[in-house]
Amino acid sequence: MNNNPTTRVITPFPHDWIAGSLLARRSVAGGAGTHTHHLSEEVQGTYHYTMGPYSDPVLHVKPGDRIVVETRDAFEGAIQSESDKPKDKLRMPFLNPQNGPIMVEGAEKGDALAVYIESMVPRGENPLGTCCMIEEFGALTGTAYTATLNDPLPEIVRKIHLDESHVYWSDRITLPYKPHIGTLSCSPEIDSINSLTPDNHGGNMDLPDMGPGTVTYLPVRSPGARLFIGDAHACQGDGEVCGVAVEFPTTTTIRVDLIKGWTIDWPRMETSELIMGIGSARPLEDATRIAYRELIRWMVADYGFEKWDAYMLLSQCGIVRLGNFVDPKYTVGAAVRKRVIAEHAN
Amino acid sequence: MNNNPTTRVITPFPHDWIAGSLLARRSVAGGAGTHTHHLSEEVQGTYHYTMGPYSDPVLHVKPGDRIVVETRDAFEGAIQSESDKPKDKLRMPFLNPQNGPIMVEGAEKGDALAVYIESMVPRGENPLGTCCMIEEFGALTGTAYTATLNDPLPEIVRKIHLDESHVYWSDRITLPYKPHIGTLSCSPEIDSINSLTPDNHGGNMDLPDMGPGTVTYLPVRSPGARLFIGDAHACQGDGEVCGVAVEFPTTTTIRVDLIKGWTIDWPRMETSELIMGIGSARPLEDATRIAYRELIRWMVADYGFEKWDAYMLLSQCGIVRLGNFVDPKYTVGAAVRKRVIAEHAN
Amino acid sequence: MNNNPTTRVITPFPHDWIAGSLLARRSVAGGAGTHTHHLSEEVQGTYHYTMGPYSDPVLHVKPGDRIVVETRDAFEGAIQSESDKPKDKLRMPFLNPQNGPIMVEGAEKGDALAVYIESMVPRGENPLGTCCMIEEFGALTGTAYTATLNDPLPEIVRKIHLDESHVYWSDRITLPYKPHIGTLSCSPEIDSINSLTPDNHGGNMDLPDMGPGTVTYLPVRSPGARLFIGDAHACQGDGEVCGVAVEFPTTTTIRVDLIKGWTIDWPRMETSELIMGIGSARPLEDATRIAYRELIRWMVADYGFEKWDAYMLLSQCGIVRLGNFVDPKYTVGAAVRKRVIAEHAN
Amino acid sequence: MNNNPTTRVITPFPHDWIAGSLLARRSVAGGAGTHTHHLSEEVQGTYHYTMGPYSDPVLHVKPGDRIVVETRDAFEGAIQSESDKPKDKLRMPFLNPQNGPIMVEGAEKGDALAVYIESMVPRGENPLGTCCMIEEFGALTGTAYTATLNDPLPEIVRKIHLDESHVYWSDRITLPYKPHIGTLSCSPEIDSINSLTPDNHGGNMDLPDMGPGTVTYLPVRSPGARLFIGDAHACQGDGEVCGVAVEFPTTTTIRVDLIKGWTIDWPRMETSELIMGIGSARPLEDATRIAYRELIRWMVADYGFEKWDAYMLLSQCGIVRLGNFVDPKYTVGAAVRKRVIAEHAN
Repeated sequence: MNNNPTTRVITPFPHDWIAGSLLARRSVAGGAGTHTHHLSEEVQGTYHYTMGPYSDPVLHVKPGDRIVVETRDAFEGAIQSESDKPKDKLRMPFLNPQNGPIMVEGAEKGDALAVYIESMVPRGENPLGTCCMIEEFGALTGTAYTATLNDPLPEIVRKIHLDESHVYWSDRITLPYKPHIGTLSCSPEIDSINSLTPDNHGGNMDLPDMGPGTVTYLPVRSPGARLFIGDAHACQGDGEVCGVAVEFPTTTTIRVDLIKGWTIDWPRMETSELIMGIGSARPLEDATRIAYRELIRWMVADYGFEKWDAYMLLSQCGIVRLGNFVDPKYTVGAAVRKRVIAEHAN
Repeated sequence: MNNNPTTRVITPFPHDWIAGSLLARRSVAGGAGTHTHHLSEEVQGTYHYTMGPYSDPVLHVKPGDRIVVETRDAFEGAIQSESDKPKDKLRMPFLNPQNGPIMVEGAEKGDALAVYIESMVPRGENPLGTCCMIEEFGALTGTAYTATLNDPLPEIVRKIHLDESHVYWSDRITLPYKPHIGTLSCSPEIDSINSLTPDNHGGNMDLPDMGPGTVTYLPVRSPGARLFIGDAHACQGDGEVCGVAVEFPTTTTIRVDLIKGWTIDWPRMETSELIMGIGSARPLEDATRIAYRELIRWMVADYGFEKWDAYMLLSQCGIVRLGNFVDPKYTVGAAVRKRVIAEHAN
Repeated sequence: MNNNPTTRVITPFPHDWIAGSLLARRSVAGGAGTHTHHLSEEVQGTYHYTMGPYSDPVLHVKPGDRIVVETRDAFEGAIQSESDKPKDKLRMPFLNPQNGPIMVEGAEKGDALAVYIESMVPRGENPLGTCCMIEEFGALTGTAYTATLNDPLPEIVRKIHLDESHVYWSDRITLPYKPHIGTLSCSPEIDSINSLTPDNHGGNMDLPDMGPGTVTYLPVRSPGARLFIGDAHACQGDGEVCGVAVEFPTTTTIRVDLIKGWTIDWPRMETSELIMGIGSARPLEDATRIAYRELIRWMVADYGFEKWDAYMLLSQCGIVRLGNFVDPKYTVGAAVRKRVIAEHAN
Repeated sequence: MNNNPTTRVITPFPHDWIAGSLLARRSVAGGAGTHTHHLSEEVQGTYHYTMGPYSDPVLHVKPGDRIVVETRDAFEGAIQSESDKPKDKLRMPFLNPQNGPIMVEGAEKGDALAVYIESMVPRGENPLGTCCMIEEFGALTGTAYTATLNDPLPEIVRKIHLDESHVYWSDRITLPYKPHIGTLSCSPEIDSINSLTPDNHGGNMDLPDMGPGTVTYLPVRSPGARLFIGDAHACQGDGEVCGVAVEFPTTTTIRVDLIKGWTIDWPRMETSELIMGIGSARPLEDATRIAYRELIRWMVADYGFEKWDAYMLLSQCGIVRLGNFVDPKYTVGAAVRKRVIAEHAN
């Protein structure tokens, strides 16, 4: 039996702007690989709860290849009904299951991996998302780190119908289906970090912007990059305030390419409209500082800005996006419009 | 000489949505006063550097009245050319001059003041904005509070041409003119707080959203409310990362109305699209917590939401806006679209 | 009637080491004034809840003078029995009543005021201290700033017998009587800051070290210094974790002297054993950064240390003292032993 | 060749108080094992830079056994002279080498490991410690997390003579030799965490109290406990402000015992005088919150305190110790004197 079936046909970029992206311009394969790989639940086998250099690869791909990934929801399906109690069903630290590690041919420490998300589709006939309140988790409650003596908030579970257009939050309220990948990273060099924690490798960033049509650039720190991916959200508010988005299992299609010799300290993102530096830290101002400093470094290194001019300019037109402020570290993106970058270049 | 000329004609709301706003529905005058007051530089006389109960009123208005305010820039015009050194020209703590206090008839502790910004127009024939880097001020440097031993960043001044359409950042880069009021507050009950610091009275929030067409609701804590206003920015990025926006003198037209018995702990905002809670604190996660908690309280008290449902819903569709993360306290807004509120009401 | 009786005799320093202190060496009167002033409840009249330049002086003294102050407890006596509910009895922001302002002849912006605490004695025949748990106040609960949705902790009041030797916490547990002044400051230049908040003027620092036998140096920022004092604690743990110490009314005797032209950015302290920089900020690391930077600046300016050597040396022998981490800002002291200073001088 | 020589004779406890410690009362072997193991550099072979479940054991011991460990300094000897530049000599993340993992017979998830430090002796004929300033590391500089645009501080190296009595900081200044172990932990359950980072497993806590004569209790989360130890400091100030203590290679003798079924969330410590909860987090107030909550939980579970009484009591007599505020997470200990515990028990 072939556990890793691949197919040869690759469709053109479903998002036009990719042709002009940094991915297309600087990667080994220009974003245009030759194979599609299928990382099904069966191929994945055991999902992972840490991202590190110690786990066995599940897939080997070439730069530019496309991977169709079957992600599980953050609770690995353990929360089945609204009468479930999260503390009975969840077994810390075995949360937020990750697909991978996926090995990318030629990737070495000092490179960057470009992950273009083509599409995210709910799995199952009658797809359901899950939201819940978990004791001592979330932004508006005492937690394991912001330790208080207050009684915990109640445990509440919501099962939410959704399709590729909408998330049916309640009888009354319908939200747009706006999926994104919550957790994405290459392996750290020596650490193996649980999938709840974001840091300079990426990880559990929960950035609502990281959806179909975007490219995330991740620092490569170990041979083969060892890509991990999981934690799809059908939609999410800024900050993921109660700690849980609309968690759901997906078929997520990505293309993975390699930018040799582009050494970045933190993940970065590119969309049709903007470029973004991403930081994860506590307190939240430190995450924001990192994000802005990375963005300035990017503007200086690749777009010809003088450092202080970039700093002062972003004070007038910088865009800040809050990922989460509920995980063990908080995540912020700082961005600038490509229009501004383009005006500077002319 | 009449130092406080008023005129009787009040134009209709220049922003249609105001007719359906909380301001229009619940205020004493429905946003429709009878007089326009002119708070010119001459009427103002001495500008203020603290907001508190100890200064002499410059204007008395009735609920619904309109006030045309001549604001000074945050440096009170002291930085005239790009060769000026901020540390030579600025004299702490005499920064960020405020107009006011404006006394509103009938305002008492426990009420809320509604401040609708009608318009903001640059003053002067050839309007110039000012941006600069100030030693030990800004997000990406050690400061008086985040004390480091590093040498300070260089002092740099930018004088920027602007008009009612654009901010001409450089020969190459033009940004949209998107003005907002950086500092807005009623007086605290007993404190007199310098105009650089935001807190639960409002103050130096630097929220880029607080521009023409929006209504800010401020807690009233002393008789007459004692409204202060100043610190106009021609545009500003999220977080105001270098510490200074495009600071400029304006003619800002506001209408001020009173909501009796609406006791709010922190400022709130309403626009055509959303309602927002606003928090100011350090660290930045605390500002975000306050903003979200205030929003939840608002949704529960005025829009029929159950508390935990609001909490979980905002985890899916909450919108976070970073004001500044450079002032003595940082400011965050947490918002929800009125569309969602409306769906819930049906 | 003489509301401000003074007496001529001043006793020698009850703490020998003062003769060698910076106070004795550099102050206008060498710590040895000519008069003792009595700031009784009657002389004080109305106590103050903000420290600022807007209140009427209650006393005028000369450098070196001694003042016998009748301080009230932080609740101004409103909590009388263990069955009282703090939320019924306390009326924010009218907490932490302060004696003062005391005007010191010759004090001007840029000077430092030296406050030597001679003694602190409980007032009343059968002295009682008060501790309590207040809703949304304290370190291990959500608060107005660290906003959570959890139910508040219970309200509990403890009335505690004490004398000049012991604090009788319970039938079983007796703690040493180790009094200190929780709140001490000169006026800020333009702000009037509530007495719950510490900052660079001093204020509600709650440093357990600030007791009899110590000298605190405060920055003078307005004419006459305008000294405020209050908030005596019969004992206090590091951090004042539940938010309330053993609060009690005292007769506190201080001597006040003036160091001309010694411009300090933050309060400093000297004891027989050590010198200390004091910082107040959030988050707590910022308070600690300030304290250490101020200590380094002191060692460089007055004791001949090279900056980087002081920095590395304190990494080996610095002493950190946590005041509170419950107030609107947190307070930390960073100290070095005088023995080390002395060895360096030889 | 016998790489793991053991000897049978175990001396009595060199610190008398251990006989009454929780270690002696509740551990499997009462602290009195039968063998002494020698974990020399040769036996250790490769040192480790992460603590996790993925590395090969270097030693197997029984509860109560004694281990003589040859620790390397935090730079693994790479900084040899005062003219070395840290950035040339250090290769992130290969810093802070750890001995271990040491497997303890019978240890399982849910137990606690008791580590009693018997002695710490400098290695080498003419022992030298190392302190240095490292770019973007330390409390009073911008860092990788508190990202700033300032130029880094200078790199400076100090080589410091020391013996078992003193640390000879300079020609003038001599500090007491007061050694402690900076980094101590069992393995996390699934994470492998770099040795620079403290967290709920222990790790790089840098608590100056963790020296000879103390017992640290560590949560066991994987079979055999997998103990790691390293990072000896000849002395250290509170907070380790410049980021580096007097780092030196030692022969450290510990005894390791096992407390079955004592499940603790964070490390704890016991000395002759006090018991301490330990927290590691950012911001620093969160570390302090954790430490105090753990201490309260301990007082309630093992010493008969009522929760709110413990909370209010610690507000009067709690002792806070700052480990570091320079690592990726900061460490704080919160303690209470055993005298108070004992009074309560009577």
